[in-house]
Amino acid sequence: MIGKHRHLTGLEPLTREEILSVLELATSMKEVLRRPLKKVPTLRGKAVVNLFFEASTRTRTSFETAAKILSADAINWTSSSSSVTKGETLVDTALNIEAMHPDILVIRHPAGGAPELVAQHVSCAVVSAGDGAHEHPTQGLLDLYTLSEHFCAAGGAPAGAAPDFGVLAGKTIAIVGDVSHSRVARSDLHGLTKLGAKVRVCGPPTMIPQGIEAMGAEVHHQLRPAVEGADAVVMLRIQHERIGDPLIPGTREYSKFWGLNERKAAEWLTPSCAILHPGPINRGVELAPEVADGARSVILDQVENGVAVRMAVLYLLAGGAHEAAEGGARA
Amino acid sequence: MIGKHRHLTGLEPLTREEILSVLELATSMKEVLRRPLKKVPTLRGKAVVNLFFEASTRTRTSFETAAKILSADAINWTSSSSSVTKGETLVDTALNIEAMHPDILVIRHPAGGAPELVAQHVSCAVVSAGDGAHEHPTQGLLDLYTLSEHFCAAGGAPAGAAPDFGVLAGKTIAIVGDVSHSRVARSDLHGLTKLGAKVRVCGPPTMIPQGIEAMGAEVHHQLRPAVEGADAVVMLRIQHERIGDPLIPGTREYSKFWGLNERKAAEWLTPSCAILHPGPINRGVELAPEVADGARSVILDQVENGVAVRMAVLYLLAGGAHEAAEGGARA
Amino acid sequence: MIGKHRHLTGLEPLTREEILSVLELATSMKEVLRRPLKKVPTLRGKAVVNLFFEASTRTRTSFETAAKILSADAINWTSSSSSVTKGETLVDTALNIEAMHPDILVIRHPAGGAPELVAQHVSCAVVSAGDGAHEHPTQGLLDLYTLSEHFCAAGGAPAGAAPDFGVLAGKTIAIVGDVSHSRVARSDLHGLTKLGAKVRVCGPPTMIPQGIEAMGAEVHHQLRPAVEGADAVVMLRIQHERIGDPLIPGTREYSKFWGLNERKAAEWLTPSCAILHPGPINRGVELAPEVADGARSVILDQVENGVAVRMAVLYLLAGGAHEAAEGGARA
Repeated sequence: MIGKHRHLTGLEPLTREEILSVLELATSMKEVLRRPLKKVPTLRGKAVVNLFFEASTRTRTSFETAAKILSADAINWTSSSSSVTKGETLVDTALNIEAMHPDILVIRHPAGGAPELVAQHVSCAVVSAGDGAHEHPTQGLLDLYTLSEHFCAAGGAPAGAAPDFGVLAGKTIAIVGDVSHSRVARSDLHGLTKLGAKVRVCGPPTMIPQGIEAMGAEVHHQLRPAVEGADAVVMLRIQHERIGDPLIPGTREYSKFWGLNERKAAEWLTPSCAILHPGPINRGVELAPEVADGARSVILDQVENGVAVRMAVLYLLAGGAHEAAEGGARA
Repeated sequence: MIGKHRHLTGLEPLTREEILSVLELATSMKEVLRRPLKKVPTLRGKAVVNLFFEASTRTRTSFETAAKILSADAINWTSSSSSVTKGETLVDTALNIEAMHPDILVIRHPAGGAPELVAQHVSCAVVSAGDGAHEHPTQGLLDLYTLSEHFCAAGGAPAGAAPDFGVLAGKTIAIVGDVSHSRVARSDLHGLTKLGAKVRVCGPPTMIPQGIEAMGAEVHHQLRPAVEGADAVVMLRIQHERIGDPLIPGTREYSKFWGLNERKAAEWLTPSCAILHPGPINRGVELAPEVADGARSVILDQVENGVAVRMAVLYLLAGGAHEAAEGGARA
Repeated sequence: MIGKHRHLTGLEPLTREEILSVLELATSMKEVLRRPLKKVPTLRGKAVVNLFFEASTRTRTSFETAAKILSADAINWTSSSSSVTKGETLVDTALNIEAMHPDILVIRHPAGGAPELVAQHVSCAVVSAGDGAHEHPTQGLLDLYTLSEHFCAAGGAPAGAAPDFGVLAGKTIAIVGDVSHSRVARSDLHGLTKLGAKVRVCGPPTMIPQGIEAMGAEVHHQLRPAVEGADAVVMLRIQHERIGDPLIPGTREYSKFWGLNERKAAEWLTPSCAILHPGPINRGVELAPEVADGARSVILDQVENGVAVRMAVLYLLAGGAHEAAEGGARA
């Protein structure tokens, strides 16, 4: 359980306190992840099924790593989305998996709402690993974690200390790119505003959804005012498959107006401004290589924190210690 | 060992007693599967290789889940059947895998007889996960289990009690669909007749194999007389790839004559008649959605029992407790 | 650590003593592999990521089996090489994986030098599972192991005794086929010459690299003088994709001049001459089936020894017992 929730399908339904409970647990999980022997028996006897309807080795591996460190069994269920054109068939697949008694079903699906639909039909816990343009809640959580860690370090906290997530309050984060189609942007926006940060979104008008101001975002169409004075910048991945759309700028134009290179970073960003990216990076498009690999980049911290955050989510939803005690008694 | 057999390539070679020994062990395995902590150390140090020459996430996952609950290592060996056009190459692949010391080789193959061929060449145990139109023995076993469970419950046994498999004697089971090409029908037929049930098969003449009466089946070409008075109905999946064959009816015609919808089920089936399907269902073709999801359906019980039955098979063939004791002494 | 090396990207950088240290450890590992319960807790809490940019179920499974026997977690990261056309993207992928704290990264890549490039950027250990036409070091090690075992047995050592690798000194090994494009040939050549064996290479002139004599090889363009008097013959796989190249002989011509059939083997080879092949075999091309399956063939021994050698490599590079003690103290 995350607070009163049996599932994690987005950050929008969570309260500030529920989000903080995951992040705080993740600080202990990160400690485990960094041990030379990365293995705790916490979720032994629990099973995690990764049900991915979109290819994503990176996110799948992060969940698989998290499950294995906690001693859960991880099983990968690969599906082509072509075989699930009808909603009822997605539910069929989920019910079939449920009948094999997994404890957690991690779902990535091209259609927004798919994890929520599955959650309504199964008794095991459901975690969204990204659904359409809706949400990617564990990415949102890992971004909150990484930003907090960066701000604490920038504020003088000792290296390796667990971050204080209160540090996000009052900070300004700019999210740049195709915000309309980004589940990462949506989860970041929900998470950041709940934790008291201010969010600017920036991109060409065709990439900014109508009415996003009502979600608390400040809208920019030019990069400079969006990133100037920001405490961190989240650069989104430009989706190659959308390039060529007459409403979407070409790669070169995109890079020129909304990409970050070393010169812009040096001139426009504050000295301590961090740069995040959900990966994989299109080097030379949204980020110049020198910026992606530069001192401001916390992109690899995001990947590391992703495992820690997912460990925390799996632990809370598989009902770790509590059910384990019951199970031990019954076994 | 299942009785005197080192391998499980079909239900045809097994005696009634051998089949019962697997089913009875599966009742204990189902109990383990339903624990909050689904993990026993029984097959620790044993390795199960899943060698699938046909895509089947569902069956592969069921075997993988069964192996992991028993603490065996599960390794998936994916092969395109195009790379094994010659029998000797299948054997080559199997010999290569055997040289890595697996204890059990689970094989799915488009050619009937492939697991048997492999079993003749390797020293590890071989389990068929479906071979051509020959057999799918673990599906047959899980159908026997599910039917027994249903009949015991319908007869007033307390919920959750281990089924008495003697209940199958004298029951009438109708198998409907493309019986000619169904390895499930063939394994069901062998298993059911050995346990004393009567089997009716039903489908268009082009889908019923010549001489199946000699195997103990009663042949029907019309749905109503086949299912009237039956204690259970197994609806087979219509193979999309066979639709279009001039000898095979179209989807619409098939559904009209041999599909089950709510009206036919209400009018023709006895009140306690169960409906089984090996999955995945073509909703609206062989089964209307209301029937697939209705009170008579035990389709998800089949999936659950599939894991239990496969745990029993893996346990018996990997030589669980006995060799474990030896190994422990040697280790 | 293998001697002073944190990575295994080839046999060329290793000294004779470093190679021997791996082979000697592999003798104990082979004993574990042959136990009825193949499981030791040595690498519990360690993670091995298999990053394969070329399909290779056989090698991937061998590494996965080795990892699991040692109780390490094995995670498969599948990548299409199309997504890594730029070197920096390979490094990006590796850095992303590294951020998830694996202990060992096993890499197969179509470009020679890829594992070495990655090794320069990550802190975890890197093992090459074959890179372009450069090296395939674990294949080289398993060939050294298998040859030693064969020569000891031929010299009268009791069956099952650990081989004495000194036996390789002074032996003559012929490597036949497309030596130019063979990473196996290159690793064999480095390993064999370091352990004192003499190496003959044989193939059509277009398949023998310029200057290979400088690496210690004796060059032959005809099969008979290459294999006559040899203590063992390594037959390389002819790459189907290279057939059709105007510089390369056709399958039939290849088989006639450089393939081994029963008659040639009987007339030209010494009675105790062993035949090796890295697999998978093109039966009827480089090896006639009777030869591949005949008494001289040690091809399946190679597969078995492959797991033992990889266990040894993973153990040495994950810093087994030593770090385990530290970790236990910290945990």
